[in-house]
Amino acid sequence: MNGADLLCDTLLAAGVDTCFANPGTSEMHFVAALDRKPAMRCVLGLFEGVVTGAADGYARMADKPAATLLHLGPGLANGLANVHNAKRGRTPMINIVGDHATYHLKHDAPLTTDIESLARPMSHWVGRVASADTVSRDAAQAIAQARTAPGRIATLILPADAAWNETSAPLATIAPPLPRPKVLQPHISAAVAAIRSGKRTTLMLSDAALRGPALEVAGRIAKATGVRLIAQQSNARMERGAGRVAIERVPYPVDQALAALKDVEQLISLGAKPPVAFFAYPGKPGSMLPDGCSVLQLADPGDDLLHALQWLADELGIAPSVKPDVMELQRPPLPTGALTPASIATALAALMPEQAIVCDESVTSGRNLFQFTRTVPQHDYLQLTGGAIGGGLPMAVGAAIACPDRKVISLEADGSGMYTLQALWTQAREQLDVVTVVFANRSYAILHGELRSVGAAAPGENARRMLDLDNPALQWTQLAAGMGVESGRATTAESFCELLRGALSRRGPFLIEAVL
Amino acid sequence: MNGADLLCDTLLAAGVDTCFANPGTSEMHFVAALDRKPAMRCVLGLFEGVVTGAADGYARMADKPAATLLHLGPGLANGLANVHNAKRGRTPMINIVGDHATYHLKHDAPLTTDIESLARPMSHWVGRVASADTVSRDAAQAIAQARTAPGRIATLILPADAAWNETSAPLATIAPPLPRPKVLQPHISAAVAAIRSGKRTTLMLSDAALRGPALEVAGRIAKATGVRLIAQQSNARMERGAGRVAIERVPYPVDQALAALKDVEQLISLGAKPPVAFFAYPGKPGSMLPDGCSVLQLADPGDDLLHALQWLADELGIAPSVKPDVMELQRPPLPTGALTPASIATALAALMPEQAIVCDESVTSGRNLFQFTRTVPQHDYLQLTGGAIGGGLPMAVGAAIACPDRKVISLEADGSGMYTLQALWTQAREQLDVVTVVFANRSYAILHGELRSVGAAAPGENARRMLDLDNPALQWTQLAAGMGVESGRATTAESFCELLRGALSRRGPFLIEAVL
Repeated sequence: MNGADLLCDTLLAAGVDTCFANPGTSEMHFVAALDRKPAMRCVLGLFEGVVTGAADGYARMADKPAATLLHLGPGLANGLANVHNAKRGRTPMINIVGDHATYHLKHDAPLTTDIESLARPMSHWVGRVASADTVSRDAAQAIAQARTAPGRIATLILPADAAWNETSAPLATIAPPLPRPKVLQPHISAAVAAIRSGKRTTLMLSDAALRGPALEVAGRIAKATGVRLIAQQSNARMERGAGRVAIERVPYPVDQALAALKDVEQLISLGAKPPVAFFAYPGKPGSMLPDGCSVLQLADPGDDLLHALQWLADELGIAPSVKPDVMELQRPPLPTGALTPASIATALAALMPEQAIVCDESVTSGRNLFQFTRTVPQHDYLQLTGGAIGGGLPMAVGAAIACPDRKVISLEADGSGMYTLQALWTQAREQLDVVTVVFANRSYAILHGELRSVGAAAPGENARRMLDLDNPALQWTQLAAGMGVESGRATTAESFCELLRGALSRRGPFLIEAVL
Repeated sequence: MNGADLLCDTLLAAGVDTCFANPGTSEMHFVAALDRKPAMRCVLGLFEGVVTGAADGYARMADKPAATLLHLGPGLANGLANVHNAKRGRTPMINIVGDHATYHLKHDAPLTTDIESLARPMSHWVGRVASADTVSRDAAQAIAQARTAPGRIATLILPADAAWNETSAPLATIAPPLPRPKVLQPHISAAVAAIRSGKRTTLMLSDAALRGPALEVAGRIAKATGVRLIAQQSNARMERGAGRVAIERVPYPVDQALAALKDVEQLISLGAKPPVAFFAYPGKPGSMLPDGCSVLQLADPGDDLLHALQWLADELGIAPSVKPDVMELQRPPLPTGALTPASIATALAALMPEQAIVCDESVTSGRNLFQFTRTVPQHDYLQLTGGAIGGGLPMAVGAAIACPDRKVISLEADGSGMYTLQALWTQAREQLDVVTVVFANRSYAILHGELRSVGAAAPGENARRMLDLDNPALQWTQLAAGMGVESGRATTAESFCELLRGALSRRGPFLIEAVL
């Protein structure tokens, strides 16, 4: 058995059975090993940003890491933006990055790079396999790192000779994931005291606290004590819809965020960082909390957040009879007339199926979508967590592979979508059940707003040439067809509804270009 | 005036008048400043790999750096693979990477990253603007770094507040590029002695030694002394064709490279690194030179290589009457029958216009193209220098912007082309005179070969799923149409010739999908 076989066996022993890949020469023995392991599902991305973004989406929905297979420093670099998003979303991920054979590095061949330095800013842990004999031990360490709650990025560099050399080293022992730590009594007591103080209190939830069961407990606390619930602007995964406790999010625009939080006297955080501005704007604050607002960090993101909420409810003495306010199923009528972000959101609210997975990278156009979908059937809502655009289409790939029985609805801005449009090909090849909606406003609309927000002048010729995507307009239906994905173009609310209804009633990938 | 204005003025004062850009919020003041500087040509890429690859192609042909404008760490990361190619090609480049305002970094907002660590592996120099008052001085340093021969990657991080704050600091003095150092007499004497020793000697040329005038001198030396001329496998730019001295390149496959160099007793290098294997293969050597071959480094890549060659010729006492062997114009007849890599190369040789710029990322399919085009009209030949695929289509963008009066012929493998296909949109928007030929073999053909070369088994199911690009086949004509580029599909040599002739007879972008 060679090192590559042993590495595959180690991954499989840990239940890591999905590998998103774009390999090169230095990974050929790993590819050959994968051939001998039909239990490993290999998914090709035609660009590394697809590979890492898919691994992010997969892990968010599977609650376990996928492996990625990347080719040397440039292959890793191509995937880093979505690794960044995954890191910010606290997604577990195991990146296998091939490198030259150990003895070849001295030649400084053209593809030689400092992989460690590239990996570190976007990884929690970076390791390098020393030899075929250590590969299983090294991989076990990467797996343990990735599975450390709430999720970590582990990047393991695999020299080609560590993959191809023979070894008789045993399979390393794979430790099961550690149970999530419980919060400590003093934290709970402090939270109880804060809530009972009579001050205006907001409970800010993140990560596992945004799943249905935790939200229900949080909803009971809110009902009984009057605390307000809120989530960060961007979240890796929220469970929501009819029958669930709804939670608002901190708005993206600074002025709206400040207004939304202006009355908060104390913030109790469960896994969330106190809200800050996405960017600095001249003359505006960076923290979104009002002056004098106190912050109590009740739990870290990797803690057992459900347990912390239950304990908090118990300590607050909330009776079992207290039920949270939950959303009642309510759907709007189908929209008619002009195709606008609002009519698209209405159509989605009218037609979204049970247990859909919504991957939202619709940026400006989709900013109000969240409001429209509070009362629709239960669904998961996945966002761009690190702000690096190009996460959406790949995320949909990963979510669809993790949950083959659920419909994935991928909401995509045209500017962001162009970053990693190659994901559509993987959707076609794997026949993934993804409906992509491209909000074709033909501009970096967010930047037009940002140009105003930072106090810069109205756009002139050079600025427009950098912010507008018209001339030529992107033809998304043709791009989709070029990658084997069926598609249609909508220019009215009616035609959008018709296309959406059709796409939802069949399996397999479909793209709707929504011309705004 | 704010820092962004001063930065633009500094770039323009140094003759850096082209900016390839994909900006974000933190760069909005720089965008606004560009609006006030119509002398700066701004070119939008819909993905950062397009931006940096275009800057590479531009500088190769313009012999001066372009600026890039990138958005924070993830934007830089997206562009790094082509920065790597540029670094390996010794291309001058000035990357302006926006960052959060200095005082906003402490908030660790979602897009906060360690930009310096990401930049360093692919940059010769990394700097950070301290404030609006230092921006001109800092930019002048970046410019001086980029213009240090033969060319360096300078990455300058621009905090948003350094761009938007007002300053009365003066424009920094822009030092003209330093003259290239002359080689020292002892090196010339050593080279003369080596050539006169009677040993089988190869002169390995790189960088500026591959331009016409230097090649002519090298050709005279070869003619008079019998030394053999060779270039590295990949070169940033070679001037070649009828009337010029032809030069062979070290082959890519290791066995062929070893065979080509097996008789070399001494290698004299002008700016080139001794040839090594692109990758390690089990049981094969890393150096392509035979045991005992001596290496004399006559000149570093940044030296005045033309002068070194002239001096060497003088010291060798070569009479002015000695003329080099140059290629005579010769074109093959148009090919007929099946469409193959050879028939495509023949068609190009038959039809390529004067002063074309060939950007070659055709990988496996184009491996023999070089042989076919030795005797065609003069042209420049640009290659993928760092091995990070996805360089070709962007490189063509940059070359076309640098040389608007010359036809650019972009030869692209389908696997590589998918990495940065967004470049086609920029070609359409800027109406660049680029003919793209996609060698549609629908596989990572090189990897099928590499899988064999590393001694791995024949591909099974998992390997084929990672190496083949069929199912679905990419439809390049539709991808091109989706981005506003006209196109045609060729399936025979005759139809390829017809499309190529048509594309060459008109201006503007055109894509030919050559189905192999």
